[in-house]
Amino acid sequence: MINKNGNRQVFMDCHSSYEKAQLVLIGAPFDSTTSYRPGARFASKTIRSESYGFENYSPYLNRDLTEFNIYDAGDLELPIGDTKAVLNEVENSFAEVFKDSKIPLMIGGEHLLTLGAVKAALKKYPNLRIIQFDAHADLRDEYLGVKLSHATVMRRIWEITGPNRIYQMGIRSGDKEEFDFAMGNNKITMNKFDFAKLDEAIEKLKGYPVYLTIDLDVLDPSCFPGTGTPEAGGVDFITLNNAVRKVCENLQIIGGDMNELAPNYDPSGISTALACKLLRELILSLLSHR
Amino acid sequence: MINKNGNRQVFMDCHSSYEKAQLVLIGAPFDSTTSYRPGARFASKTIRSESYGFENYSPYLNRDLTEFNIYDAGDLELPIGDTKAVLNEVENSFAEVFKDSKIPLMIGGEHLLTLGAVKAALKKYPNLRIIQFDAHADLRDEYLGVKLSHATVMRRIWEITGPNRIYQMGIRSGDKEEFDFAMGNNKITMNKFDFAKLDEAIEKLKGYPVYLTIDLDVLDPSCFPGTGTPEAGGVDFITLNNAVRKVCENLQIIGGDMNELAPNYDPSGISTALACKLLRELILSLLSHR
Amino acid sequence: MINKNGNRQVFMDCHSSYEKAQLVLIGAPFDSTTSYRPGARFASKTIRSESYGFENYSPYLNRDLTEFNIYDAGDLELPIGDTKAVLNEVENSFAEVFKDSKIPLMIGGEHLLTLGAVKAALKKYPNLRIIQFDAHADLRDEYLGVKLSHATVMRRIWEITGPNRIYQMGIRSGDKEEFDFAMGNNKITMNKFDFAKLDEAIEKLKGYPVYLTIDLDVLDPSCFPGTGTPEAGGVDFITLNNAVRKVCENLQIIGGDMNELAPNYDPSGISTALACKLLRELILSLLSHR
Amino acid sequence: MINKNGNRQVFMDCHSSYEKAQLVLIGAPFDSTTSYRPGARFASKTIRSESYGFENYSPYLNRDLTEFNIYDAGDLELPIGDTKAVLNEVENSFAEVFKDSKIPLMIGGEHLLTLGAVKAALKKYPNLRIIQFDAHADLRDEYLGVKLSHATVMRRIWEITGPNRIYQMGIRSGDKEEFDFAMGNNKITMNKFDFAKLDEAIEKLKGYPVYLTIDLDVLDPSCFPGTGTPEAGGVDFITLNNAVRKVCENLQIIGGDMNELAPNYDPSGISTALACKLLRELILSLLSHR
Amino acid sequence: MINKNGNRQVFMDCHSSYEKAQLVLIGAPFDSTTSYRPGARFASKTIRSESYGFENYSPYLNRDLTEFNIYDAGDLELPIGDTKAVLNEVENSFAEVFKDSKIPLMIGGEHLLTLGAVKAALKKYPNLRIIQFDAHADLRDEYLGVKLSHATVMRRIWEITGPNRIYQMGIRSGDKEEFDFAMGNNKITMNKFDFAKLDEAIEKLKGYPVYLTIDLDVLDPSCFPGTGTPEAGGVDFITLNNAVRKVCENLQIIGGDMNELAPNYDPSGISTALACKLLRELILSLLSHR
Amino acid sequence: MINKNGNRQVFMDCHSSYEKAQLVLIGAPFDSTTSYRPGARFASKTIRSESYGFENYSPYLNRDLTEFNIYDAGDLELPIGDTKAVLNEVENSFAEVFKDSKIPLMIGGEHLLTLGAVKAALKKYPNLRIIQFDAHADLRDEYLGVKLSHATVMRRIWEITGPNRIYQMGIRSGDKEEFDFAMGNNKITMNKFDFAKLDEAIEKLKGYPVYLTIDLDVLDPSCFPGTGTPEAGGVDFITLNNAVRKVCENLQIIGGDMNELAPNYDPSGISTALACKLLRELILSLLSHR
Repeated sequence: MINKNGNRQVFMDCHSSYEKAQLVLIGAPFDSTTSYRPGARFASKTIRSESYGFENYSPYLNRDLTEFNIYDAGDLELPIGDTKAVLNEVENSFAEVFKDSKIPLMIGGEHLLTLGAVKAALKKYPNLRIIQFDAHADLRDEYLGVKLSHATVMRRIWEITGPNRIYQMGIRSGDKEEFDFAMGNNKITMNKFDFAKLDEAIEKLKGYPVYLTIDLDVLDPSCFPGTGTPEAGGVDFITLNNAVRKVCENLQIIGGDMNELAPNYDPSGISTALACKLLRELILSLLSHR
Repeated sequence: MINKNGNRQVFMDCHSSYEKAQLVLIGAPFDSTTSYRPGARFASKTIRSESYGFENYSPYLNRDLTEFNIYDAGDLELPIGDTKAVLNEVENSFAEVFKDSKIPLMIGGEHLLTLGAVKAALKKYPNLRIIQFDAHADLRDEYLGVKLSHATVMRRIWEITGPNRIYQMGIRSGDKEEFDFAMGNNKITMNKFDFAKLDEAIEKLKGYPVYLTIDLDVLDPSCFPGTGTPEAGGVDFITLNNAVRKVCENLQIIGGDMNELAPNYDPSGISTALACKLLRELILSLLSHR
Repeated sequence: MINKNGNRQVFMDCHSSYEKAQLVLIGAPFDSTTSYRPGARFASKTIRSESYGFENYSPYLNRDLTEFNIYDAGDLELPIGDTKAVLNEVENSFAEVFKDSKIPLMIGGEHLLTLGAVKAALKKYPNLRIIQFDAHADLRDEYLGVKLSHATVMRRIWEITGPNRIYQMGIRSGDKEEFDFAMGNNKITMNKFDFAKLDEAIEKLKGYPVYLTIDLDVLDPSCFPGTGTPEAGGVDFITLNNAVRKVCENLQIIGGDMNELAPNYDPSGISTALACKLLRELILSLLSHR
Repeated sequence: MINKNGNRQVFMDCHSSYEKAQLVLIGAPFDSTTSYRPGARFASKTIRSESYGFENYSPYLNRDLTEFNIYDAGDLELPIGDTKAVLNEVENSFAEVFKDSKIPLMIGGEHLLTLGAVKAALKKYPNLRIIQFDAHADLRDEYLGVKLSHATVMRRIWEITGPNRIYQMGIRSGDKEEFDFAMGNNKITMNKFDFAKLDEAIEKLKGYPVYLTIDLDVLDPSCFPGTGTPEAGGVDFITLNNAVRKVCENLQIIGGDMNELAPNYDPSGISTALACKLLRELILSLLSHR
Repeated sequence: MINKNGNRQVFMDCHSSYEKAQLVLIGAPFDSTTSYRPGARFASKTIRSESYGFENYSPYLNRDLTEFNIYDAGDLELPIGDTKAVLNEVENSFAEVFKDSKIPLMIGGEHLLTLGAVKAALKKYPNLRIIQFDAHADLRDEYLGVKLSHATVMRRIWEITGPNRIYQMGIRSGDKEEFDFAMGNNKITMNKFDFAKLDEAIEKLKGYPVYLTIDLDVLDPSCFPGTGTPEAGGVDFITLNNAVRKVCENLQIIGGDMNELAPNYDPSGISTALACKLLRELILSLLSHR
Repeated sequence: MINKNGNRQVFMDCHSSYEKAQLVLIGAPFDSTTSYRPGARFASKTIRSESYGFENYSPYLNRDLTEFNIYDAGDLELPIGDTKAVLNEVENSFAEVFKDSKIPLMIGGEHLLTLGAVKAALKKYPNLRIIQFDAHADLRDEYLGVKLSHATVMRRIWEITGPNRIYQMGIRSGDKEEFDFAMGNNKITMNKFDFAKLDEAIEKLKGYPVYLTIDLDVLDPSCFPGTGTPEAGGVDFITLNNAVRKVCENLQIIGGDMNELAPNYDPSGISTALACKLLRELILSLLSHR
């Protein structure tokens, strides 16, 4: 029969209205500062489109997305070509969701977008901490002469949060200056290569509001080829999924993002499929521990 | 800003409600009888998804989609694996739109779906005629022992319309029996290879209600590689577009379909891009001559 | 020199005649109930075609395919579009091979095909047991309103075998009802996520005739991207290969299948390559322990 | 033998030094304002890399690239993420080549880059005219709220040249306002769909310095699929090649560009191959008529 | 039912035995001298494998492959890595078929293979003529220091046939020396760019035994992207098909080949599809005019 | 600004001159004896081209490529089609670098190329040992009747080195004769499947000059799909990287190669990305322990 109510497209079966929602999904299709291989702009659209092939139910958590109220806001309309305006739009959108006491979860897009989100989070939660799962330190001061770049995003965030706020896991690429910066007096907690010190970090973060940013290239390219800069030597899905669950179970996650899926470098679709499943697990873990 | 009204996805900017609409787009994601290369099931979804990259305005017609009320109903929920039930669903959906005095336009899917649509059309318009643009005659009596198949659809339609009703253009593939069937006493008008006798056909069809079915493989594979069975020696976009316009300008098209785009065989995206443009032109031509 | 005896195509060097064969390979190119991404229909053809690039010899087993008599029957001619007729054809073919006291091994195709094979096996071996390696429970009662579907196949099989017959390994996806069904009074032995309880299952199955069905999506998508529904978090090749060997060495495998390779989602060819090697290992293990 | 002089990479065999060169090739790997499908950033690199597979000799012109002194400057280092700075870099580079009395030829990149080039050209040649071969008018005033965009580039150029300076060929896509703008009092000469009025345009342009900008999407997607926004209904290679030759033979081309090849949407490589050949023909035509 | 007679794979339905055959298809999977993009080795296998998706019947000729006796010999076993031995194998195979008074038709493979075939043909038919449809002259004396190369094949053939024997159509690429060689005293008839002088060539060739070699890159890359060196500006399928038919209808074709399909550069499959259809037409034309 | 010094292309930032260099990178674009899937010819070019997306700095070693003098010689000009001449060219190039007391490091290309390199190394270092990381034994005496083949290369090397010189790690594919040859009196040390006995091998090799040949197919296809013959069951990046580091730290590596990347079977680019990183690690390990 003809559906006469309009053709709505959402992640899996997240059909809640905005008003009722506990959590709001926000697509951010932007990758203009990506210097190597663009395509993260297609992530949110592709995740939504492909998610119909996967299940709402998690056998890991024995929970189902239909148990919760989740609103998928679709994609932001971003002024491609004007980086600052894009970041403002992200910041305003996060601010709006925070104001309405819901959890914002952004599907990037490139990692620079996190700067806009964290700005809004910091206004709402001044003692905010940040956990970053990532292959790259993203701590350059500038990149190709540009201050606002996917490669500088954590440096910009560090500048507005100050020291002792950022916890990085899985870092295995960067230039020497970035590693030196993190290791020096700037008091960024960097766990190189893996998640070995996650428990330690969680202990330190208990009681603080935490923003979780997941750059999916933290995964090994074998299980996640579809990203702009694939870095051999990463973690597998089960490791990352366990880390996400542990963080959500033990900390007060007030918002977050999952970024850098580039579906155009994922011809078999396994990266998008993994992202769909991880997003489901992330949402279920988040909402099960509220 | 967060869109709080739900994330609607439609072809280009066809944002009308069902109630106001003059024309209704119906996606039909089904290709289970495809014997060679499946994928037409992805056509409607991909057309909708990619159409945002193209314009609402036609410089050919100097008309714009936003001048008209067009409703995109999204995809039918089809019982994959049960061919008869699928055809019933299509028939019922077309019947519903006919009842509401709107023009139904189906985005297939495989060509067999046309059988459901024509059944509904024939009930509404007993003296219906059919124009088929296609590389294949689709006139087999059965295929691999199966009666309901993409390769038999026009034979099944011929059985319910009787002779003198079907006009085929561009046919360049089939087995000998199909060509003999059309040329024999069954009074199917078949224009082999090209559209040379289109004007002649239009003359004969004036005054009748006409269903237009476009199998996109009528196009040459150079401009339309993304289809299940690409047949060298077809027409180019301009020829097909002119034919579509001529038919819409001169005849009473009461409904139709455009089928057999298989986006998974279209790595460069040019087939989907062409289909988006042709669909825009088809809709604009149809609605400009009401 | 011109080969004047016809251009025969077989898996690796399996050149035996049917009469002499201990084991018969049967291709089943069917995927019409696949609801997400079709393509398993191409598996048997592609495995045969690509297998020439790999070795007949197994360094794992120190055995060689040329030591045994294996007949490759090519692909069944299946009536695409008529699901029941397809299953009958599979059942009849298995029955024929059982009658001739050979081991039938089917290369699917989608998982629903296993229903036809098990029907034949159950007639020959009334106390048959089934081992299923799979990411999906396939225990739905119906899917999209359809009873015969890749997502319902184990439920249909359960209906004809009754309880205590089915052993599932590696299951990590399904809806809640499927997991509840297996865990409830229906006495399906389900090992979630991995193969931890394989030894336990083998103990219980000793002495029974066993049908082995391998849905290749039990593998992690990193090593097997080319499948319709890739599910992150699966096992690697060595784990699966060891499980296959252990099962063949310890149980009376009377037939089986390997399904759900979709070569069109395998642009690098690693999934087909793995399937070729696993099939070699499966055949060698089976025939070495007769 | 080991080449001890460094591994230089140039288009075909364009091995001249800068000093001796009559013509300078400039790669501009930028596509950050591309709103639909990015990838033009890879064009110059791919053209250089693949050009070794093609010939220096043109049987159309009976001339060979090795007859002339052509310098390939490689790619500009562009501050990805800062559009204005990128355009300045392009402008300065063109100014430098103009100062040295050589012909600059840019390999884009996205079409916005032409704005930087034309700014430099206009300073050197105040009565400059522009010929644009393109599928798109690129005459929007702003796009997604942004003034500097691939979709607005000819409007920005019009603002600095004033009326009666721009000649567009092959335009077949845009919004209504763009076509109205061109057709109105702004005195842009627009040849819709094809190159029918090229001779007429050449007559008017004789005696003026002319900048030639070729957006390769003017070609039909059948022969040039590898571009961000493929528009059905374009011209074929021979038509475009003849137009390029005619322009170079009859007018004083003082510089130009060829843009919008997106190799990532060109899996068969035919678009890059065509671009290599067209670039060869363009260079040979330009230098043969000095 | 199980096919117990072995799994034979042939082009379309060419099921004749060698003994009864009028025409013998010979696959030659070799491309080792290809300097740019290899893959022609996969052509014969892919043509056979994909041909099942197309028809035996030609509506152009109103003839069907099943009317004739055609034997598909499968692929020669070629000593990859030893060019001379490969050519000997081809020569011997052609000689064998000539001896048995059948028409050999080779599916390459790279164009160098034609040298082996022509050697055999010349022994059987000393006054042999050659028609070559090709984008490339292939008249270099050596290439990368090598005498036996795809780029030198027609020069090697010219050396054994002498002048006035070779007719080239569609040539649009080569170095200057090749064009000069053909145009000079060596009396090669070269039709640049198109087939304009085909009728003239046919007149001269009447009464002679003729070998027909088709390098499929004579086609425009829009309709035939899947080839090692795609050259823009070629002919379309209908032009080539008409030329093939005309040659077969008017001349005594004693054997031939069709080469340079590289399926790995043909992701949409349209090149293989075209090759299947052209091969059908070539065979039907050849056998209808015996 | 225009770069007026020529457009040099090197691996990462290896900008040294030949004269100053400690290590020389040599590209060898050859794969003509590859019997299954060619493409290794594209490896060196692609590695150079893509390496700009990755870092010079290794967080594993805390060293940076810019600390050392490394010369990238680009690709050798190889006479494609003449295997012996190709091997001579490789041998001469290695000899030249050895003569100048630098470390040669070849980027293949197919594995046969190692024969040329080892010939030169053996002349310089008569008591040379060889470590081979590989999935394949490459110990056939001939392959398809050919002596010089990727499948015979280690047998040819064994013939010139004699017994007790070759150490193989990770071997998991070959025919029975190859495994028997290694295990027999020929005194090749073969570690099947993994690197378990690497430490043992290193102990035996201490004090000898060692040539290191890495066939990248030793990696599991999950992390390295882009190779001609992907063999399931290999090692992951971290294992291989550790092995490379251990060998370089403990032994006197006098030269080596890394081969069998086939970028055309690597659509996501993860294989090239891994190869870039491994090459960086290999170079840094080598030069840090001089």
